[in-house]
Amino acid sequence: MHPLQQLMNPSSIAIYGASNNPMKMGSIQLANILETGYRGRVYPIHRSEETVMGLPAYRSIAEVGETVDLAQLVLPTEVVPEMLEECGEAGVRRAIIISGGFKEVPGELGVERERRIRDVAARYGIRFLGPNCVGIMNSLCSLNSTTIVEPPMGGSIAFASQSGAYTAMINPYLRAQGIRMCQTLSVGNEADLDLVNCLDYLRNVEEVKSIGLYVETIRRPREFITAARETARVKPIVAIYVGGTEAGSRSSLSHTGAISGPDELYDGLFRQAGVIRAEDLDHMFDLLWILSMQPPPAGRRMAVITNSGGPGSSLAYHLEKAGLEAPAFSARLRERLDAVTGPLTFTGNPIDLTFETNIFIFKQLLEMVYESGEVDGAFIYGIFGAPDFMVNLKKRFPDLQAMEDTWDQGYQSFLGELVAVSSAYAKPLVVMSFLGTHSSSIRSLVENGVPVYPSAVRSARAMRSLLDYVRIRQGISRE
Amino acid sequence: MHPLQQLMNPSSIAIYGASNNPMKMGSIQLANILETGYRGRVYPIHRSEETVMGLPAYRSIAEVGETVDLAQLVLPTEVVPEMLEECGEAGVRRAIIISGGFKEVPGELGVERERRIRDVAARYGIRFLGPNCVGIMNSLCSLNSTTIVEPPMGGSIAFASQSGAYTAMINPYLRAQGIRMCQTLSVGNEADLDLVNCLDYLRNVEEVKSIGLYVETIRRPREFITAARETARVKPIVAIYVGGTEAGSRSSLSHTGAISGPDELYDGLFRQAGVIRAEDLDHMFDLLWILSMQPPPAGRRMAVITNSGGPGSSLAYHLEKAGLEAPAFSARLRERLDAVTGPLTFTGNPIDLTFETNIFIFKQLLEMVYESGEVDGAFIYGIFGAPDFMVNLKKRFPDLQAMEDTWDQGYQSFLGELVAVSSAYAKPLVVMSFLGTHSSSIRSLVENGVPVYPSAVRSARAMRSLLDYVRIRQGISRE
Repeated sequence: MHPLQQLMNPSSIAIYGASNNPMKMGSIQLANILETGYRGRVYPIHRSEETVMGLPAYRSIAEVGETVDLAQLVLPTEVVPEMLEECGEAGVRRAIIISGGFKEVPGELGVERERRIRDVAARYGIRFLGPNCVGIMNSLCSLNSTTIVEPPMGGSIAFASQSGAYTAMINPYLRAQGIRMCQTLSVGNEADLDLVNCLDYLRNVEEVKSIGLYVETIRRPREFITAARETARVKPIVAIYVGGTEAGSRSSLSHTGAISGPDELYDGLFRQAGVIRAEDLDHMFDLLWILSMQPPPAGRRMAVITNSGGPGSSLAYHLEKAGLEAPAFSARLRERLDAVTGPLTFTGNPIDLTFETNIFIFKQLLEMVYESGEVDGAFIYGIFGAPDFMVNLKKRFPDLQAMEDTWDQGYQSFLGELVAVSSAYAKPLVVMSFLGTHSSSIRSLVENGVPVYPSAVRSARAMRSLLDYVRIRQGISRE
Repeated sequence: MHPLQQLMNPSSIAIYGASNNPMKMGSIQLANILETGYRGRVYPIHRSEETVMGLPAYRSIAEVGETVDLAQLVLPTEVVPEMLEECGEAGVRRAIIISGGFKEVPGELGVERERRIRDVAARYGIRFLGPNCVGIMNSLCSLNSTTIVEPPMGGSIAFASQSGAYTAMINPYLRAQGIRMCQTLSVGNEADLDLVNCLDYLRNVEEVKSIGLYVETIRRPREFITAARETARVKPIVAIYVGGTEAGSRSSLSHTGAISGPDELYDGLFRQAGVIRAEDLDHMFDLLWILSMQPPPAGRRMAVITNSGGPGSSLAYHLEKAGLEAPAFSARLRERLDAVTGPLTFTGNPIDLTFETNIFIFKQLLEMVYESGEVDGAFIYGIFGAPDFMVNLKKRFPDLQAMEDTWDQGYQSFLGELVAVSSAYAKPLVVMSFLGTHSSSIRSLVENGVPVYPSAVRSARAMRSLLDYVRIRQGISRE
């Protein structure tokens, strides 16, 4: 069993550093463990308090009365080695060391401290994440030991990161788009378990369909390449790397003690490892999202269906820029499309329905286009749902509320059918829309597994990544 | 007076095509005019109704009893020429023709129809926007004749667009970021007033500080270059162009009858015109936002101040990638910074305060850095405001609510002071944060004129655009 298996799915957790002072990071993390739905046993360890946040507290982990699966340490740097030793003595074999002040701080002292915790861990066979990290999140057992409240749990994206902030703080951004996270692992200084271990573990977590990595350094390049290639056979990996400039490198060193290398070196390393490199975190999640939900296209040919010209032209332009194609449809297909569309519709590809057409025919059009065999996937820009332009009208026409409710239901079932067409043909679908997840239509699409992006360039490069992953997998299999 | 002056600031509007049927585009637009706070006189023109949406309706514009400043026509294509003639007869000299079905539809009929409205307009001296557009928005007189409700009015960005959808539909996306719009103009097929006219007009609207353009074609390249260069002397222009691929070009033709040219041609044209080219609409608004609010940097040297390592490293990396610099600070400056920061802080640039430090010293640090003369601008990544990590804690520590309220006030005044430091030194400031505008801290920053972006790459390229505009303006002045 992989050491991260127990660490990510513990039946019991001891937490050092939580107290009745809410302004401590340990208290925040304990509150989050307790409020996120985790059903295992939770033991606060505290030298003086009888209870911590309403739970019985234990003077030492030895007093708990069971051998806990996982200890999380949120303590002043200098006491970490001793407490880790206490854990070892009590039979604990998995730990997360949140505390900072190790290799990432300048000088020999930090390095020496990190050596000490490694020694203790080695002596007791403890495998651990950190130090200098923020904890883990695992939707599969509703465990959230990080500082973040209400993480967007669910979905099938995993994220392992050398930045704690990125695993924890990005959640409002993800939530606003409807992106869910299955598992996150903050690896900190990687004194023991590192990104290589994360890949080896995540490869076999069936619920995880795509893996993101935030990289400031790869400490074991050879092992990384092996682990990543093995993983990329079964699921895509997307990484960002920010060590490759002078200031980026200086910053990484101070952040996690990472010795980074030039950009080109990492480009080559990722290529060899079968890893897709993203530009930044937002880009990475754009790709992870589609890669976790949509099937690979059989080729580059894409349909664009829109009810607005600008987005249609933008999608056509950017998909070509991304190396995809928007082939002109055959006369035969256009004839079929023309038969069901209005006089102002252009059906050449993009299919531009213009504003006034009944958008329920999107489904029929998508079916015709797929049936023709002329494309391998589709982009849709649709003004789905009535709510936005009805707000002011309703002040003048109160009866519209009932109509809007009916429409809304209609849209919900329509969107379900639209997604079903796409699934039936096993072709990928991307939606572009400026409406966020406050729109029930967008929520419906997202919950049905369709990624929605607010720009053509983001839509196009997301679709392109599906093809990139196909190529990567083919490349690995051929060898 | 520029013809768009009266069109954008009418004292009275007649609207053709609004009715008591809420499902008509004209009705939506009338409701929006009435509900957005426009204080001019509004006259629905309707052949049979006595009243439209509670307003007295007029059988023809001649019956209104005054010469209206602006007529907006939302009518079936075939009656547009006749109604435009009626407007001309009644002395109307400004119009917006929303209706489609002109040059953008295939065949000679559309072209012929467009010729007819041009002839009518020429005969009566009518200057008009459209056809095939969605109307205008002008915060300065609270006029919104588009289909969009609750536009994010205010700010100092103007947007002129050959896509109606883009002017109207992007609003939820802008609102989510706190981006406001001063004026939007949907130019449609540009049968009369075009992007050149928009530039000539917007150049002299004092409240407008940056101008965005969505371009499928430039119909008058020579005049465009002249108008844009004149404009770029006083305010920046950012444009996107999507006609430059095969499918993009096909789509543009069907959308607004635009004959587009290759990408490189437009690259050259924009360069000559002093226009910054953006990749897509989201990118364009990222740039327009900062360009409308922040001062130009005197050089490339940037400070990064953060309380999280990952975002700090990412900012350092991406600002260098964007052609800016994050110079290592002098020993003298570091000494000063070290004196006020904690032991885990790295002050080399980035200044990484790490999670636990009191973030109120951001202000002091920014002041020291600016005072040193070692940088020309700053990036800040800050976890400003307590709300996110307090949610679960408050369930266990109810007293925290009062503390949170106090903190929140503290943050508000702190953020005001932080922005004041930046203003006092007249150096640009960009904030990176994953919190959206649901966070009061982010709202406060944005309302104080600081743009907030959710990724390092977006932050860096925004800052870079300030420098690009400095170069453009210098280039134009030198000639």
